Amino acid sequence: MKENMYDNQAFFSAYAKMNRSIEGLEAAGEWHDFQALLPELDGLNALDLGCGYGWHCRYLRQNGAKHVVGVDSSQKMLQKAQQMTSDTQITYLNQTNEDFKVNGETFDLIISSLAIHYIKDYRKLIKHIAVHLKDRGVLLFSVEHPIFTAKAEQDWYYVDGDIDHWPIDHYQDESQRLTSFLGHPTKKYHRTLATYINTLIENNLMIEAMSEPKPPQSMLDKNPSLSDELRRPMMLIIKARKI
Amino acid sequence: MKENMYDNQAFFSAYAKMNRSIEGLEAAGEWHDFQALLPELDGLNALDLGCGYGWHCRYLRQNGAKHVVGVDSSQKMLQKAQQMTSDTQITYLNQTNEDFKVNGETFDLIISSLAIHYIKDYRKLIKHIAVHLKDRGVLLFSVEHPIFTAKAEQDWYYVDGDIDHWPIDHYQDESQRLTSFLGHPTKKYHRTLATYINTLIENNLMIEAMSEPKPPQSMLDKNPSLSDELRRPMMLIIKARKI
Repeated sequence: MKENMYDNQAFFSAYAKMNRSIEGLEAAGEWHDFQALLPELDGLNALDLGCGYGWHCRYLRQNGAKHVVGVDSSQKMLQKAQQMTSDTQITYLNQTNEDFKVNGETFDLIISSLAIHYIKDYRKLIKHIAVHLKDRGVLLFSVEHPIFTAKAEQDWYYVDGDIDHWPIDHYQDESQRLTSFLGHPTKKYHRTLATYINTLIENNLMIEAMSEPKPPQSMLDKNPSLSDELRRPMMLIIKARKI
Repeated sequence: MKENMYDNQAFFSAYAKMNRSIEGLEAAGEWHDFQALLPELDGLNALDLGCGYGWHCRYLRQNGAKHVVGVDSSQKMLQKAQQMTSDTQITYLNQTNEDFKVNGETFDLIISSLAIHYIKDYRKLIKHIAVHLKDRGVLLFSVEHPIFTAKAEQDWYYVDGDIDHWPIDHYQDESQRLTSFLGHPTKKYHRTLATYINTLIENNLMIEAMSEPKPPQSMLDKNPSLSDELRRPMMLIIKARKI
């Protein structure tokens, strides 16, 4: 398995200080939209690709899922997940998202939160996911939005020290972007919206909904600087169903 | 019916000088992608919303469609369309795209080329389209991409006179944009990608494909300055089928 950035001690420590690492799902601006797109969870067999600390796995179990498998390629993240979990119906697997092996098990629901933009071969991933979804099963995932990933800098354009707008460039160039996350050099993969959508459809995953989440009004009221988030979408959420 | 920009003599004359007005579909950078997404046309009853000079109507008929209705709210455009058409199986109607009336006729195919970003009420339009599509009928349309319509200026950001990048702002603000087209003040409507997609799905129009067209290599070879078009998508094409 390739080296995983989350297994770097300095990065792992920085990640642990993020709000969403400490407070979990409610501290994630996109969670409200993600949650609203989840299907009825009762009795489902679910898989979480890039499960990290396991917040989503625990949420799924606490809200009715029968069994949840969490996959992550970082040993450190899974150690933390295991520490935070006391539930025999959650299984953590130290595997990569695009090559996970689950002995022919299939799922009613596969989710992935902000992991797929780290994966080089999206087509291979989606094909692998489609094989492991039951008929009528749901795939729900969030990624950094193509508007956000197009330029490697992933930053606003400033004029006289103030945010002026969000810059786009190289949009049609679907390839690696060397960027920075929590001060660490980070490889991400930019793909166009058309690729995100068409690859699902080509694998018989019918698009059921898309979201470009905005911070909820309650967050905007508490923290007015968040209104910059209305100026460009940072994330994209897609829900698709196997037909 | 509201005043139509294309009925303004000065604008109409400027539009007549555009390559795509003189040379038709082959001069339109997005045509190759649009054409590739058309269904088999043989025997179809088709509708073109915002048909302009009627290029698409004639193409559909010449490639097998049984009957084509072209709708446009500009009398001048339809006069020109009529002059360019000698085909009793093409009917032009001077109506608006969101209120067209066709006596209960339904269609196997409804297309629209670069017209829908002029329409204020997208939800009403899509509902009206869905009612007029036969079961399994196809909707195929192009619009200016939300990346292109977000900022009213619709222009590159220049540094020292050269293109530096494409600026995005106000993305989540779905409303009118006062912009300029061929030197004339023009009202367009910016909508997010999520709105374009979700409204279709809510009306039982299943997404079959999406394109963010690039200029074909043959055009890039002839005109290298077109490579700026790879830096941000200008247009969005969506194909959906009534289920």
